[in-house]
Amino acid sequence: MAEKLTGLKRTHMCGEVSDLDVGHEIVVMGWVQRRRELGKLIFVDLRDRTGILQIVFKSELDSELHSKALQLRNEYVIAVRGVLQIREDINPNLKTGKWEVVAKELRILSKADTPPIHIEDVVDTSEATRLKYRYLDLRRPVMQKNLMLRHRVAKVARDYFDEKGFIEIETPVLIKSTPEGARDYLVPSRVFPGKFFALPQSPQLFKQILMVSGFDRYFQIAKCFRDEDLRADRQPEFTQIDLEMSFVDIPDVLEVCEGFLKRVYGEVLGIDIDIPFPRMTYAEAMERFGSDKPDTRFGMELVNVSDIVKNSAFKVFSGAIENGGSVRAINAKGCGSKFSRKEIDALTDVVKTYGAKGMAWIAVEDGNLRSSFTKFLTDEEIHGILKRVQAEPGDLICFVADSDSIVFDALGHLRLEIAKKLNLLDENKNNFLWVTEFPLLEYDDEEKRWVAKHHPFTSPMDEDIPLLDTDPGKVRAKAYDIVLNGIELGGGSIRIHDQELQKKIFNVIGISDEEAQRRFGFLLEAFRYGTPPHGGLAFGLDRMVMLMAKCDSIRDVIAFPKVQNSSCLMTGAPDFVDEKQLEELHIRTVIPEDEK
Amino acid sequence: MAEKLTGLKRTHMCGEVSDLDVGHEIVVMGWVQRRRELGKLIFVDLRDRTGILQIVFKSELDSELHSKALQLRNEYVIAVRGVLQIREDINPNLKTGKWEVVAKELRILSKADTPPIHIEDVVDTSEATRLKYRYLDLRRPVMQKNLMLRHRVAKVARDYFDEKGFIEIETPVLIKSTPEGARDYLVPSRVFPGKFFALPQSPQLFKQILMVSGFDRYFQIAKCFRDEDLRADRQPEFTQIDLEMSFVDIPDVLEVCEGFLKRVYGEVLGIDIDIPFPRMTYAEAMERFGSDKPDTRFGMELVNVSDIVKNSAFKVFSGAIENGGSVRAINAKGCGSKFSRKEIDALTDVVKTYGAKGMAWIAVEDGNLRSSFTKFLTDEEIHGILKRVQAEPGDLICFVADSDSIVFDALGHLRLEIAKKLNLLDENKNNFLWVTEFPLLEYDDEEKRWVAKHHPFTSPMDEDIPLLDTDPGKVRAKAYDIVLNGIELGGGSIRIHDQELQKKIFNVIGISDEEAQRRFGFLLEAFRYGTPPHGGLAFGLDRMVMLMAKCDSIRDVIAFPKVQNSSCLMTGAPDFVDEKQLEELHIRTVIPEDEK
Repeated sequence: MAEKLTGLKRTHMCGEVSDLDVGHEIVVMGWVQRRRELGKLIFVDLRDRTGILQIVFKSELDSELHSKALQLRNEYVIAVRGVLQIREDINPNLKTGKWEVVAKELRILSKADTPPIHIEDVVDTSEATRLKYRYLDLRRPVMQKNLMLRHRVAKVARDYFDEKGFIEIETPVLIKSTPEGARDYLVPSRVFPGKFFALPQSPQLFKQILMVSGFDRYFQIAKCFRDEDLRADRQPEFTQIDLEMSFVDIPDVLEVCEGFLKRVYGEVLGIDIDIPFPRMTYAEAMERFGSDKPDTRFGMELVNVSDIVKNSAFKVFSGAIENGGSVRAINAKGCGSKFSRKEIDALTDVVKTYGAKGMAWIAVEDGNLRSSFTKFLTDEEIHGILKRVQAEPGDLICFVADSDSIVFDALGHLRLEIAKKLNLLDENKNNFLWVTEFPLLEYDDEEKRWVAKHHPFTSPMDEDIPLLDTDPGKVRAKAYDIVLNGIELGGGSIRIHDQELQKKIFNVIGISDEEAQRRFGFLLEAFRYGTPPHGGLAFGLDRMVMLMAKCDSIRDVIAFPKVQNSSCLMTGAPDFVDEKQLEELHIRTVIPEDEK
Repeated sequence: MAEKLTGLKRTHMCGEVSDLDVGHEIVVMGWVQRRRELGKLIFVDLRDRTGILQIVFKSELDSELHSKALQLRNEYVIAVRGVLQIREDINPNLKTGKWEVVAKELRILSKADTPPIHIEDVVDTSEATRLKYRYLDLRRPVMQKNLMLRHRVAKVARDYFDEKGFIEIETPVLIKSTPEGARDYLVPSRVFPGKFFALPQSPQLFKQILMVSGFDRYFQIAKCFRDEDLRADRQPEFTQIDLEMSFVDIPDVLEVCEGFLKRVYGEVLGIDIDIPFPRMTYAEAMERFGSDKPDTRFGMELVNVSDIVKNSAFKVFSGAIENGGSVRAINAKGCGSKFSRKEIDALTDVVKTYGAKGMAWIAVEDGNLRSSFTKFLTDEEIHGILKRVQAEPGDLICFVADSDSIVFDALGHLRLEIAKKLNLLDENKNNFLWVTEFPLLEYDDEEKRWVAKHHPFTSPMDEDIPLLDTDPGKVRAKAYDIVLNGIELGGGSIRIHDQELQKKIFNVIGISDEEAQRRFGFLLEAFRYGTPPHGGLAFGLDRMVMLMAKCDSIRDVIAFPKVQNSSCLMTGAPDFVDEKQLEELHIRTVIPEDEK
């Protein structure tokens, strides 16, 4: 049986000894990182969450103890009492490399089988194995650091918003299903046969209710759920830093959020970020970067050359413009001389991924142009273009001609692809950016109706309200996203607090009074009894921590993440349950024929 | 349409004006609590979450503004710009009763229908109406205070545990069903037909995994879920302050928890509580108070008189003892002369509720005994009893004779009932108490086997381990509950970290190796790779806040609680969902015939 702790109390964490402790007896506990023998000495690296401390067992001092130490294997859990001393061979690479404990007592608290994962920062183990043995994977110092960083970010968020007068209020997890946007996770009710709860996709409706309730400033670090097929950076359950404020307009929300980001970057990472952040309208972001979350760490902006080529004999160009689209270009500085023909063809594949039919290009050489299409253009057109994109010898000019949306999407991604190739994505830059004035509505070609781009409670901009009747696609919303280095960290909006306006919006997006009543009845009812102007925002905590920890995957900043198919490799969830459980919930499973 | 905020920024909350602001222009926003006319003046009490401030509209200053103010009704949302001045008629009952705002501008931000609930602390509205219109109910200052208190308790918990080196780690909400104890809420998987996630009843397994992962000190304010029929103080989703520590034994956990309670009572309520708390074994608690959560604010302890009456001619007494039970009494001081026969009969009903067949009693009068049964006793027996219970004239001695468990339960509750009648439950006392050394196992008469009283990972006390083979019912656990004024605030234990011992426990409670593997396989697997000794505790946050706020129901400290049948009266959850949603989840509902 394992030895007991009885009578022994830990005095120090491994990483927290200091010169003050030298000569004193201390007690440390942790895992055996490794054991080495050197003549009559046994050295053990003892690991806890703060670091590694060397323990030495000397047979000349206590041969019995020395023999016991010989039993130790990697990942054994032990307690050691001994005297701290300065090492003979100081290890400058280790925080605690200056000291060691000369053991006087050893207790083996728990033995360990040989672990299937090395407990080291760099491992070549597959992610599947890491997730199956997550408890071992989480012992790796880098994973411990990630989760401690996450803890710190959440703590600073709570400190900050508390200081700013926000009240953290828990909203329910078992709620009513109000399908819009993503798919709900459902929970069958035992008490009401045939009825279901849903898990919240966000606390949106409840936080608006809390504003109606007069809480003025709400905040919550909230678990949210979406039953969607997972992309690399999505999880079925994810965490938001969610906030809402009353009696505010856009600048008030942005200011509070900027203050938070400055605080959290400063306090957690020691990075001083400048506020206020630049603000850019959605229209400008698309025009200049082809994206509503532009990475502004580098230039290579989109240039519209439609006016120059609108009458061109090159039908790919003039035709696109005739059909209401545009011709735009980016100038990849220096790439004309740098990229091979094969590399340029690969760029063409990139734009095709985003729906473009092809990519035209010009490599500018000294007094010469290498090009896929300039033979179809007039000299005037060519010079107009080169001047517009500020071409210099060595540059590569890439063009896409199509509908605006495809041109933006293709060139926006091409720009990022080229920047990656050129190593322009500086990891040490933190380019925060507000993108504002999103379109309120977008046309759903399948459903043949306007739908809310954000959600149906988003307020239009005051001056655009008349456009709701005449040109809904032009209506801009009081919505904003916070973008960091081209990644969306969060977003929000000012909400509609006027019942008439809310009705009008439902009208425009084709939600009937009955449907609105059925889905959001309680919120609309609440709005009848005095609703303050309000707005808010939600940050994606997983993504924020991922960026702060410089990880590639949110799975590395979540203790027990799910994989692509939404299962948990460690526990085997989801799993079959007893038939009796289903009976009590008044449901029966219907297994598709091909899955039986 | 509602008026806009444009150009107006709130400068003060209603409750936060001071003499420094007198003579200055301020902007306040909030809800109209009430409007009064007094000649050419209109007074409006404006309410926000900080308090109420009087606004005055003077027709002599601005008749147009005065007319506009005439439109105001209760719960209209308005913004007011004006100059703060000292009131002529200072209201000393109001925090802000000294000042008023002379209005220069009024904007009606939102109108309001007549609310179905008065926005006042004391309402005679039914709880059902309050919950249906929760957004109005939550406007009541007392409810706002409750939720702000809850926010503060959670904040202090996070501050405290962070300072003590605990890391808050989010454990998953979509987990594997491991039925034990309460019923799981289930979530059908869309990706894996026929499989289900469960919602966690607690993060127990995950927090133990985190100890195996080396996080050393974990903490989380966690949502937990139990699909049980609700009692008054239960909710389908509830919140725990959950913690776990490595390399500790019982005193380490208790000390950390005592520190937390001292901190939270001090910081939130300004109440200095003494630590360490008294500790009492389960055996002593039952013996003295008939309860494992004794209310120690008053005496009236149980007294065992079995030895005195074991040979009595009164078969009710001697028979109970013969059958292995006991005869115990409580002395309700002064109640013999106070309680009518009818009141005493009501006490008999109380003990019957808890399974006793009846209650024997003696009312001690000056030189005389009024009694239901003393005629069957000898003088020696009577004097023995009176001496044992320290009877004095005026006292009422109540007896129950039955099996120990019924005697404890009946007298334990009787004691509380009498204390309530006598007003002995001092609201201003905070009697914290640790109850320790709970039985590890209890016998399940239905399943005819030993079951874990707490959960199967609870460690037995070292010295009781041999009893597992010989007398399992006698094995005490390293389990502890924290009790406040007779209410369980939380509980926990030191866990088993030794694989051999764990196997033995599974054996004793009849869990086969296969079953253990199927249900807890990942935890048992984890334990193979080096497990530190660990233990922890979970506080019930809802109940803790309820007690701190001196509320009678946890529903008053939860923003959006469910009612008895686990439905939400505000949103109508649970509800029917689209057939398409169920199809995607591979389930079908089975409605019982009588519910169709």
